Amino acid sequence: MNKLLIVGTVAFDAIETPFGKTDKILGGSAPYIGLSASQFNVESAIVSVVGGDFPEAHLELLRSHNIDISAVEIISTGKTFFWSGRYHNDMNTRDTLSTELNVLSDFQPVVPTNFKKASVVVLGNLHPLVQSSVLDQITNDDALVILDTMNFWMDNTLEDLMAVIKRVDIITINDEEARQLSGQSSLVAAARKIHEMGPKYVVIKKGEHGALLFNGDNVFFAPALPLEEVFDPTGAGDTFAGGFAGFLTKTNDFSFENMKNAVVYGSALASFSVEKFGTERMCNLAPKEVFKRLQLFKNLTQFDIELT
Amino acid sequence: MNKLLIVGTVAFDAIETPFGKTDKILGGSAPYIGLSASQFNVESAIVSVVGGDFPEAHLELLRSHNIDISAVEIISTGKTFFWSGRYHNDMNTRDTLSTELNVLSDFQPVVPTNFKKASVVVLGNLHPLVQSSVLDQITNDDALVILDTMNFWMDNTLEDLMAVIKRVDIITINDEEARQLSGQSSLVAAARKIHEMGPKYVVIKKGEHGALLFNGDNVFFAPALPLEEVFDPTGAGDTFAGGFAGFLTKTNDFSFENMKNAVVYGSALASFSVEKFGTERMCNLAPKEVFKRLQLFKNLTQFDIELT
Repeated sequence: MNKLLIVGTVAFDAIETPFGKTDKILGGSAPYIGLSASQFNVESAIVSVVGGDFPEAHLELLRSHNIDISAVEIISTGKTFFWSGRYHNDMNTRDTLSTELNVLSDFQPVVPTNFKKASVVVLGNLHPLVQSSVLDQITNDDALVILDTMNFWMDNTLEDLMAVIKRVDIITINDEEARQLSGQSSLVAAARKIHEMGPKYVVIKKGEHGALLFNGDNVFFAPALPLEEVFDPTGAGDTFAGGFAGFLTKTNDFSFENMKNAVVYGSALASFSVEKFGTERMCNLAPKEVFKRLQLFKNLTQFDIELT
Repeated sequence: MNKLLIVGTVAFDAIETPFGKTDKILGGSAPYIGLSASQFNVESAIVSVVGGDFPEAHLELLRSHNIDISAVEIISTGKTFFWSGRYHNDMNTRDTLSTELNVLSDFQPVVPTNFKKASVVVLGNLHPLVQSSVLDQITNDDALVILDTMNFWMDNTLEDLMAVIKRVDIITINDEEARQLSGQSSLVAAARKIHEMGPKYVVIKKGEHGALLFNGDNVFFAPALPLEEVFDPTGAGDTFAGGFAGFLTKTNDFSFENMKNAVVYGSALASFSVEKFGTERMCNLAPKEVFKRLQLFKNLTQFDIELT
């Protein structure tokens, strides 16, 4: 079976939206990516770190979705990474209220031996040196490497970020970050500049406005499903990345045509994630529900103009 | 042959963008709608009014695209409607520098006898009482009526606007205006509210983020083509409406499935309009170019996940 390696944060999140607020719930990029990818029944593992305060129930939740967490280091004397944020009424912007790195500050990722030859590697949002150190441990030269990052690393560790970007096949990034990284206001121009930095594929996430996939002159676009209500956008980007990576791992076909399908799966799965707080919706998602939503995506986007 | 009746402004526009500025060029909703619809070789007519200052060359341009302009009234003692505006650097927002209604203030539209049975009627952005007075003259009960409007009429003549909205089949409106008209922030909820006001179909235009078509629980989305550069967005919405209406007139099939195709044609044609100032690009647009752009739209949006 094809293997998917996920490196990212495992965290406590405390989230406030206009609909309510949570205590410390399961968060971090890796659980969102892993739970989303678990829809494809691939063999996956998370490399991360948590503190002694991290509940066994959260670990068990990940295990129960067939995610190998033997490489999630538990530092019993430390505390788990914590983030809290408050969304504005439009749900498109948020304020970070608190970020406590805790055990993440000294994180030295160790890739398990049985995942060094993973066919797909997702480098979730983390310090670019941590992302690079994971790549150093991968022994499959043909692995498809997907990197996610954010403006924080552009502001603070640009050189390290550029070094790891050069080594990956695909970068996923939001629209504002693509503009910042490239210095271009047009997303078409931004994608071209980012191609030149290394990645053959550039995925630009536009939140409620969908996602674009660029590969040279090839472009594909998938909308976000128009929703009556977005309950909590936290993790939508990671859920997208998890669906994208999970589908590619399962199909083992890294052509542009198949990546289109991966983008659609990623969008469909992200549309569930925002329906409830945190990872709740993704923990209880039946294949039948995903199937129905893909049908909605087809109805939403497919048309039938014949060009001959 | 099926007939398309277009009611709208014929104007002088003076436009400033970061790329340059124009003198008084041909503008107004009707020329954009008419030129776009002319791609479908349907029999079309414009009902509008201009002043004695309006150059014969502009009228000839419309005629040369097979648009019947016998119902464009020329008030030789008056001046043509004039609008000028300046776009900000992001091209998504603009300031209106000047609006001179001139001959438009007393405009009393007269529908030509041979267009009273038109199969499709486009009511371009105008005073809602003018739009209503056109509908009073239509004698084809099965005519498909498409209405475009803007926030100005919501702010100033809401009751008249609601009266005409109740009478139309399709409303095209931008996202902010849909939110204003419905009092709903979610576009899905906004479309439902607007359905309740009368129109069976609601088209929400999101500019660079594409367009949504709603009909009850049916939803279709077409993206805007990702462009390297938007030169002048003026008239993109009207060009969209013209392509949408022209395609429906030609095919004479008002099913939801065919309206999807109409939305795609509208989006494809709008993507040309923004490439040059004013109507310039639409005046010189070969069918072959449209064909190629539709192919780009297919590549951009069509995927191939089988659901069985």
